[in-house]
Amino acid sequence: MSKLEDIVSLCKRRGFIFPGSDVYGGMAGTWDFGPLGVTLKKKIMDAWWEFFVESRDDMYGVDAAIIMNPRTWVASGHVATFADPLVECKECKSRFRADKIADGITESVTTEEFLATHTKCPVCGKENWGPIRKFNMMFSTHVGAVLPEDTAENKELAEKSIAYLRPETAQGIFTNYKNVVDTIYPNLPFGIAQQGKAFRNEISPRDFILRDRECSQMEIEYFVAPNTWEENFEKMRELQHEFLEKIIGLPANHLHEYDVPAEDRAHYSKRTTDFMFDYPNGAEELMGLAYRTDFDLSNIARESGKSMDYRDKVTGEVFIPHVIEPSIGVERLFLAVLSTAYSEDEVNGEKRIVLKLAENLAPYRFCVSPLLKNKPELVEKAKTVYDQIRKKYGNVTWDDSGNIGKRYRKQDEIGTPKCVVIDFDTLEDDTVTVRDRDTTEQTRIKIADL
Amino acid sequence: MSKLEDIVSLCKRRGFIFPGSDVYGGMAGTWDFGPLGVTLKKKIMDAWWEFFVESRDDMYGVDAAIIMNPRTWVASGHVATFADPLVECKECKSRFRADKIADGITESVTTEEFLATHTKCPVCGKENWGPIRKFNMMFSTHVGAVLPEDTAENKELAEKSIAYLRPETAQGIFTNYKNVVDTIYPNLPFGIAQQGKAFRNEISPRDFILRDRECSQMEIEYFVAPNTWEENFEKMRELQHEFLEKIIGLPANHLHEYDVPAEDRAHYSKRTTDFMFDYPNGAEELMGLAYRTDFDLSNIARESGKSMDYRDKVTGEVFIPHVIEPSIGVERLFLAVLSTAYSEDEVNGEKRIVLKLAENLAPYRFCVSPLLKNKPELVEKAKTVYDQIRKKYGNVTWDDSGNIGKRYRKQDEIGTPKCVVIDFDTLEDDTVTVRDRDTTEQTRIKIADL
Repeated sequence: MSKLEDIVSLCKRRGFIFPGSDVYGGMAGTWDFGPLGVTLKKKIMDAWWEFFVESRDDMYGVDAAIIMNPRTWVASGHVATFADPLVECKECKSRFRADKIADGITESVTTEEFLATHTKCPVCGKENWGPIRKFNMMFSTHVGAVLPEDTAENKELAEKSIAYLRPETAQGIFTNYKNVVDTIYPNLPFGIAQQGKAFRNEISPRDFILRDRECSQMEIEYFVAPNTWEENFEKMRELQHEFLEKIIGLPANHLHEYDVPAEDRAHYSKRTTDFMFDYPNGAEELMGLAYRTDFDLSNIARESGKSMDYRDKVTGEVFIPHVIEPSIGVERLFLAVLSTAYSEDEVNGEKRIVLKLAENLAPYRFCVSPLLKNKPELVEKAKTVYDQIRKKYGNVTWDDSGNIGKRYRKQDEIGTPKCVVIDFDTLEDDTVTVRDRDTTEQTRIKIADL
Repeated sequence: MSKLEDIVSLCKRRGFIFPGSDVYGGMAGTWDFGPLGVTLKKKIMDAWWEFFVESRDDMYGVDAAIIMNPRTWVASGHVATFADPLVECKECKSRFRADKIADGITESVTTEEFLATHTKCPVCGKENWGPIRKFNMMFSTHVGAVLPEDTAENKELAEKSIAYLRPETAQGIFTNYKNVVDTIYPNLPFGIAQQGKAFRNEISPRDFILRDRECSQMEIEYFVAPNTWEENFEKMRELQHEFLEKIIGLPANHLHEYDVPAEDRAHYSKRTTDFMFDYPNGAEELMGLAYRTDFDLSNIARESGKSMDYRDKVTGEVFIPHVIEPSIGVERLFLAVLSTAYSEDEVNGEKRIVLKLAENLAPYRFCVSPLLKNKPELVEKAKTVYDQIRKKYGNVTWDDSGNIGKRYRKQDEIGTPKCVVIDFDTLEDDTVTVRDRDTTEQTRIKIADL
């Protein structure tokens, strides 16, 4: 098994992440966070919110609806261009993303270019392709009282009622820029931050939670005076490193910046730096930092007819702010954390799996257990210690299953930094054994000193 | 203006809640939370998570995907029965929820019953109705590479690819019951909790955030041995009161329990208690507590072919657990909090609007400001105090706009309990003025005693 497969297996075995709708055989491209996964995900998201929003004076949060007015996606360019090249095998009717099954071609491949690669169908092995068609990745739905399209009138109504699940959280921020300026009128530069779900109808979801159909994003649109974009880009770049390395604890040598060349950048970007992370299966984009100019606000101004101008409080100058956007996917960060933490070693001649999560991210900081579960005096004492620690630190778990060795192995796998064990000596002298996850060392400590 | 309109106006003016997609003229039934709204919403949700999950040993969290395998909604009964009675005016083509425009009829109204009410069209005033049709409130979409339905084959593919946005978070819990039992095997009774978005295609969204198309739910499915359901129902009932009154601070005399009679209960429920809250426009459901029996797990077992049995660790007895479900809408609770906090009084002969939010929910606990913003020594000293308070309490805001009276009025409207003002005396003796939101009283306090 590859390391990624080991992680997927651990995630399922211990309740971090299950395949979505598992009980019904799944739902491709969706994943459910289990009890430990929810806790870790929440800690990651809260750490981001605390670092980028709560602890700063220049950031404001929003939480916009997922279903937005469809004009949003006309203005943003998503209706016209948010599409992948789809190709169908005429033999077996399988459908693929053309740029994923043929070597050396990009998303803008033409039918001729694709046919020239002489790719064989990955399912039936034949080479008999239909034309390349553009497949828009936005999920669409209908809003309002639309009944079956049985009449011309109902068809027209259905057409008019189309709306999309947002493919990015960014537009929920841009469409609220004017609301924030009108109600708060912050000094430039200022940022609007949002955490929330985004949906992409990937033709072939893959790579565990790296390319799923439903993901959580954490995005900031940082509004700046146009002539200050470079210094603010630099400021944001440094902040990302501080967050990823100091707060989340990703190793700096697994992070690589990649300056995306002009021809590969999204249409709205004048500069993009991708933060690549060394995942078990290779380097993949963890997050992006983009200079979006005034592309989005200008589009909104044009489409809505409303002014997106900002009036500088000191100089009185009026302009549309430019934007620096750091954008990160929660699931990608989640997997980067797990990949960093996952390790295997040998303890007493046996293979051990251990999740070396930082204390601020581990689902539980402590596990408390009685050495033996059939000794009521030990269990009672352990419960007292458990209550004390919970009162002080909050996230603590109780474990009295199996023998002590099995409990250690389980706590190692879910990343609990310390196991506190109550034994007969505890009853005599109020000391406990504290066992360290990473070193497996055991030390004897007074309960009062915990 | 009614009190509800006053609250809607305050929400927009101060950045709590904006109409969704406001810049494009809105998107009916959606709302965006602005900077203060996000903070209040997050505090409410975190308080719930802390009270019902983190501080308890019998609760486990999950965070399931919004797009689930469509068999979920066949098993749950939503495909067949989650529908409202839709009626169309043949004259002006307007569509309505029949039970909302005619008096004294329910959701199960027939065409004959509706016509007998002789209701006039609320839009054109005529009485010329089409038949009552059932309109399913689930938003549907297509998952996977589905292209325009131009051929019979593509039509079939489209049919097969239909999926729904979850209309409730509950099924994301039930479908993970087996995952939780298989990975953790908790003792009964135990609960699985989830916070997340749910979507309902309301024919006529209305009443601000009370009946929106996209809402956040907080739900627990509490799994119990069948013969203990009554005691657990009672336990959950008491816990809800404790949360709503002690943690969130809703006044007990605005909360009324309503035991839903058998004929009005959802098909899956053998007992339902609605918690009604006195909103400004009258009593409305704030949350529901339902005894769902083994309805959902049994349906899942039948539809999936997998066993939902639980084996009691002590007695060895094997059975499908029964379920007690407390379910609350975040927006409903949010509005209950605002309705409770919103008040008007008179200060020095002028009308004042004040949001009397509890300290644990107020977006900011303190506002720090220099008495005069054009005195650098005051501003500098105020910044120092601001940093001190922020380090200690976190949520603090800075305000140096307008005069001090305007600042107080603004902080009153956003519910900041205390304003700390730095003046020339501060520079002499390190004391500050602390002004109380509710009493408007000002006291002189040493900075060290803040």
